[in-house]
Amino acid sequence: MSKKNPVIIDLKFDREQVASALKSAFAGREVIDLALPANRTRDLSEAGYAVVWKPSPDLFSRARGLKAIFSGGAGVDHVLTIPGLPDIPLVRFVDPSLTNRMSEWVVLQCLLHLRQFKTYQAQSEKRVWHELDQPAAADVTVGIMGMGVLGVDAAHKLKTIGFDVIGWSRRKKVADGVETFDAAGRDTFLARTDILVGLLPLTEDTRGIFNGALFSKLRRNGPLGGPFFVNAGRGGSQVEADILAALDGGTLAGASLDVFETEPLPLQSRLWNHAKVFVTPHAAAASDVRALFAHVEQQIARHENGEPLQHLVDRSSGY
Amino acid sequence: MSKKNPVIIDLKFDREQVASALKSAFAGREVIDLALPANRTRDLSEAGYAVVWKPSPDLFSRARGLKAIFSGGAGVDHVLTIPGLPDIPLVRFVDPSLTNRMSEWVVLQCLLHLRQFKTYQAQSEKRVWHELDQPAAADVTVGIMGMGVLGVDAAHKLKTIGFDVIGWSRRKKVADGVETFDAAGRDTFLARTDILVGLLPLTEDTRGIFNGALFSKLRRNGPLGGPFFVNAGRGGSQVEADILAALDGGTLAGASLDVFETEPLPLQSRLWNHAKVFVTPHAAAASDVRALFAHVEQQIARHENGEPLQHLVDRSSGY
Ligand SMILES: NC(=O)c1ccc[n+]([C@@H]2O[C@H](COP(=O)([O-])OP(=O)(O)OC[C@H]3O[C@@H](n4cnc5c(N)ncnc54)[C@H](OP(=O)(O)O)[C@@H]3O)[C@@H](O)[C@H]2O)c1
Ligand SMILES: NC(=O)c1ccc[n+]([C@@H]2O[C@H](COP(=O)([O-])OP(=O)(O)OC[C@H]3O[C@@H](n4cnc5c(N)ncnc54)[C@H](OP(=O)(O)O)[C@@H]3O)[C@@H](O)[C@H]2O)c1
Repeated sequence: MSKKNPVIIDLKFDREQVASALKSAFAGREVIDLALPANRTRDLSEAGYAVVWKPSPDLFSRARGLKAIFSGGAGVDHVLTIPGLPDIPLVRFVDPSLTNRMSEWVVLQCLLHLRQFKTYQAQSEKRVWHELDQPAAADVTVGIMGMGVLGVDAAHKLKTIGFDVIGWSRRKKVADGVETFDAAGRDTFLARTDILVGLLPLTEDTRGIFNGALFSKLRRNGPLGGPFFVNAGRGGSQVEADILAALDGGTLAGASLDVFETEPLPLQSRLWNHAKVFVTPHAAAASDVRALFAHVEQQIARHENGEPLQHLVDRSSGY
Repeated sequence: MSKKNPVIIDLKFDREQVASALKSAFAGREVIDLALPANRTRDLSEAGYAVVWKPSPDLFSRARGLKAIFSGGAGVDHVLTIPGLPDIPLVRFVDPSLTNRMSEWVVLQCLLHLRQFKTYQAQSEKRVWHELDQPAAADVTVGIMGMGVLGVDAAHKLKTIGFDVIGWSRRKKVADGVETFDAAGRDTFLARTDILVGLLPLTEDTRGIFNGALFSKLRRNGPLGGPFFVNAGRGGSQVEADILAALDGGTLAGASLDVFETEPLPLQSRLWNHAKVFVTPHAAAASDVRALFAHVEQQIARHENGEPLQHLVDRSSGY
C-alpha cells in the first residue's frame, strides 16, 4: 500500500482538546499540526488534506498538493474569503453532536423569551412574588431564517415543545408540520413571526440581512407584546446598531445573540449587559473535535475509495 | 328537562380571568361565584358541583348537596386537608394546556443548567468573552421523580432535546425510551441522576422527601460538575434549609424552584436571589381557566349521562 497523504491540522480551537483528540485520530496517516512551533516553516507540499478553522492566510500557498479542504465548523465563510483558495473540494462539518447543541441553544433562547425569564429574574431580585400572564407556546410563532441542517432540526424540536414554527430558505423546503416560505415569501413569513431565529450562513446575500427594515416587518401584535430576535448564524448577517435602535425604540422586545459583527464582542458594546439581551460568546454549537476528526476520516476514506465527498460547499452560492 | 344543579366557583385565581371565562361557560346552568359579595351568605344547599382552588374552609359545611368536587389545578392537597370534606368524587384538572406549560418550564430549567446559563450571564455582566466546556445533553441524565401525566410528558420532551432521561414513581411505569424505577429502585435511580426533577404530588409519603439525605445520593461525578435540583411539584415536598445547606456545601450545584414550603416565598428567604438558584412564583403551569371550565363541563356531562368521571383522586393514596 502506498504511503497515505499527510493531513494538515490548522484549527484555532482549544489546544488541549485538539491535542487530546489527535491522539486517537488519523491512524496510519501523518498529521502535521500547524500549532506546533516545529511545523511553522515546514514543507507542506506532500500534504493531501487540510482541516481548518480560521486558517493562516499563507496556508494554501504553502500546501499546494491539497486534494480537499475540511472546515472545522458548519460555516465556511472563514475559508472562502482567503486569497488564493485553490479550486478543490471544500467540505463543511455536519454532525449530530453539533446539530443537537445548536438546537439546545435555540430552544433555550426561545423558552427564555416565551417564559418571560428577564421579568421573573428582575422580580426575584426584588423579592417580588407575582405571576405573569403566560401565553401558550402554541400561540407563539417561531420563524426560522435558514432551513438547512441546523434550521430543520431546531424546527422539529421547537414543534415538539409546542411552538408554532415556520421556516424560510432560498429554495422552498418540505419539513414535517412546518410551513415554509422561499425568497419571494419573505414578507409574509416575517409578518407572522413572533420570535425570529437566524441560522443562515454568511454570504454576499445574507450580509446585513438582519437590519432595521427587516425587524419592522415582524409581527407586532403577537402574544409576547413584541417580536424577539435570536441569532446563531453569523454576526456579519446582523446590523448591531439597528438591533440596539430596535430594542430601544420598541421594534424588538428582546434578543439572544451568539454571534457578532466583531468577535470577541468589543468591550464598549452596549449589547454586553443590555436589559433585553442574552449574550453568549459564539458558544451555541462548538464543534466536538473528536467527532470532527471522525467525520474527516470518513470523508477521506470515501475520497480514497473513489466515492463522492459529502457536505460539499457550493462556491457559487457561498455555503 | 329538570333544572340543572348549580355549580359553585370558589377559585383563588386572577379575578379578571375567572370573570371573563365564566361569560362563556356553563350555558344553561346557574353559576354561584363565591368571589361576588352577594354570594357570601347565600344558601348553597342546591348546588351540585363545586370548582375549587384553595376553597373557603366553610364551603363544604354550607354546600351539603354536592355530587362532585373539581380541583382547579392538577394537585389536590389544598382540598384534601379541609376538615369536613364530604366523601364524594374529587376530580383533578388534567389538560394539555397545563401539561404543555409544565414541560416548557421543566425543559427551560434543564437547559439553563446544561448550558451553564448563570456562568455565561455573570461573564456577560463583566464583558468577558470566554467559551466554556460544554457537555452534550446525551451525557447528562435527568431523573424525574413523579412519572404521572406531567412527568411522562416532560420525559418525552427532554428526550427529544437529547437528554438521557430516567423516571421514578410509586408503581413502575412503561415509558418510551425512558428507563423507569419503582419505590424499591430509588437509590439506583438517584445514583444515576445529574438533574433531579420533582413532579410529585404532596402526600403523607412525599412530604419533605427532597432533603439533605436524598440530595447526597445523587450522582456526584457527572459532566455538570455536581447535581442540580428542579422542583415544580409542591413546596411541602422539599426541605428548604437542606437545599440551602446542600448548595452552600456543594452537594447541589444549583436549583430551580417554582414551589416553596410557604407561598408566597417569605421576604427573608435566601432563595430569592441565591447565585445558584432560579426562582419562579408557582408559575410553572397555571391552569388556563377557559380550559378548566371546558373540562368541568365535560365531566359534569359524563356524570349526568351516567358515565364514569375521569381523573378521579384516590383518597387513600392522597393524589
Ligand atoms: N453559532 C454557532 O456556534 C454556529 C455553529 C454552527 C453553525 N453556525 C452557522 O449556522 C449556519 C447554518 O448551518 P447549516 O449547517 O444549517 O447550513 P446549511 O445546511 O447549509 O443551511 C443553510 C440554510 O440557509 C439558507 N440560505 C442560505 N442563503 C440564503 C439566502 N440568501 N436566502 C435564504 N436562505 C438562504 C439555505 O437555503 P437552501 O436550503 O435553499 O440552500 C439553507 O436552508 C452555518 O453556515 C454557520 O454560519 C453557527
Ligand atoms: N407548579 C405548578 O405550577 C404545578 C402545576 C400543576 C401541577 N403541579 C404539581 O404536579 C403534581 C403532579 O401532577 P400530575 O398531573 O403529573 O400527577 P399524577 O398524574 O397523579 O402523577 C403523580 C406521579 O407521582 C407519583 N407518586 C405519587 N406518590 C408517590 C410516592 N409516594 N412515591 C413515588 N411516586 C409517587 C405517582 O406514581 P404512580 O404513577 O405509581 O401513581 C405518579 O407517577 C401535582 O400533584 C401538583 O402538585 C404543580
